[in-house]
Amino acid sequence: MTLVTAQMSVSLDGFYAGPEHTGDGSWMDSAESAGFFRVTRWVIGAMAWRQRQGFAGGEQNTNSEIIDETFEDAGAYVMGRRMVDGGEVPWGDEPPFHAPVFVVTHRPRQTLQRQGGTSFTYVIDGVESAVEQARAAAGEKNVAVAGGGRLLRQVLHAGLLDRLDLHIVPVVLGDGLRLLDPELDLGDKEAIELTPTRVVATPEVTHIRYQVDGRAPLVLDDRGRGDTAEVV
Amino acid sequence: MTLVTAQMSVSLDGFYAGPEHTGDGSWMDSAESAGFFRVTRWVIGAMAWRQRQGFAGGEQNTNSEIIDETFEDAGAYVMGRRMVDGGEVPWGDEPPFHAPVFVVTHRPRQTLQRQGGTSFTYVIDGVESAVEQARAAAGEKNVAVAGGGRLLRQVLHAGLLDRLDLHIVPVVLGDGLRLLDPELDLGDKEAIELTPTRVVATPEVTHIRYQVDGRAPLVLDDRGRGDTAEVV
Repeated sequence: MTLVTAQMSVSLDGFYAGPEHTGDGSWMDSAESAGFFRVTRWVIGAMAWRQRQGFAGGEQNTNSEIIDETFEDAGAYVMGRRMVDGGEVPWGDEPPFHAPVFVVTHRPRQTLQRQGGTSFTYVIDGVESAVEQARAAAGEKNVAVAGGGRLLRQVLHAGLLDRLDLHIVPVVLGDGLRLLDPELDLGDKEAIELTPTRVVATPEVTHIRYQVDGRAPLVLDDRGRGDTAEVV
Repeated sequence: MTLVTAQMSVSLDGFYAGPEHTGDGSWMDSAESAGFFRVTRWVIGAMAWRQRQGFAGGEQNTNSEIIDETFEDAGAYVMGRRMVDGGEVPWGDEPPFHAPVFVVTHRPRQTLQRQGGTSFTYVIDGVESAVEQARAAAGEKNVAVAGGGRLLRQVLHAGLLDRLDLHIVPVVLGDGLRLLDPELDLGDKEAIELTPTRVVATPEVTHIRYQVDGRAPLVLDDRGRGDTAEVV
């Protein structure tokens, strides 16, 4: 069965990049990029990522296997417009996805066909439509929501996400673009429950795979009062 | 060698409790407590915690072993005043610590001696003094900074923390009291680096032990540009 999945590298305090770059100057010199490159450092050094980008070198290790698996698992992608615009030049004629990409945007644009099986289809009628189109294109594989953070929150908010792979990087950034935040519109005493189904530990990053169980009320658990001997 | 350690249960979005309870009504009925009881649910059901509290029941499982280890590891504690005030009644005549506790506060109070080796010494000259007094009392064991969140941040901010045990609970709360936040006063392109030294996975919670390496600048890692074949 096709699952809707997402994966993201985050700092220990929940940021996937530094504070948003809004002023003048180069993004590469910004605090946003400094945070982004820190939390994705484990990716940049991995052979699987470098091969997909056409770069030499890299390490063949557990982190590289995780990246290989992530690419292999995806039959189609959903991405935000800002991410695709930023990737258009560095990804070049043969982007690393080798699968259809559905781009959530407000501005229509003709579908781009790239070498190696990657295409970019611009979807203007919302995130649910993009996920549906990706599901139809994914065949037996999964749909990968590949970022940015706002798109991932929208998919989670809409109850469309089945699986979340978090790559938790051992650094505290203190400020930046937060993956999970109040945009989720959770009610008072309401939460999103998940279940960890796999944990892979490396010195550079802890990979935790979560099954998303969905919204649930926070009920008072009063076993801590000690006036019952029964543990449910 | 005595280490200064801290441990805290947090939601996947970094909260150790729901939004702070400030108005009327019972704390037990507040959103703050609903979040707190959700992230500490794995503790409440564990036999090791229940035994220390004098409660019946509980499960003897990996989570219970983690709690046992946490108590065994600590030769002395540092706590915030709010936490100790809140615990005074439920902890009763024989609090679960069985070791000296140093309470960081602005209001002097006479040292309290409790049964089972627990004492509460009120320290009014700051967190560094409290940590030093706890270190002197801990013998060969470690100093445990046991909360709340603000005290833990103060210890981290002051560069006093050697080890951080995070218990990451698979729930998104959306809002609440955040363990790590801008109070850390990190500079632009500055971070606190850590190294994960142990990961213990259970269905209820992921236990990650971090060595705190300290503040470091975020340097641009440009291996992702692909114009070098060398991977450092």
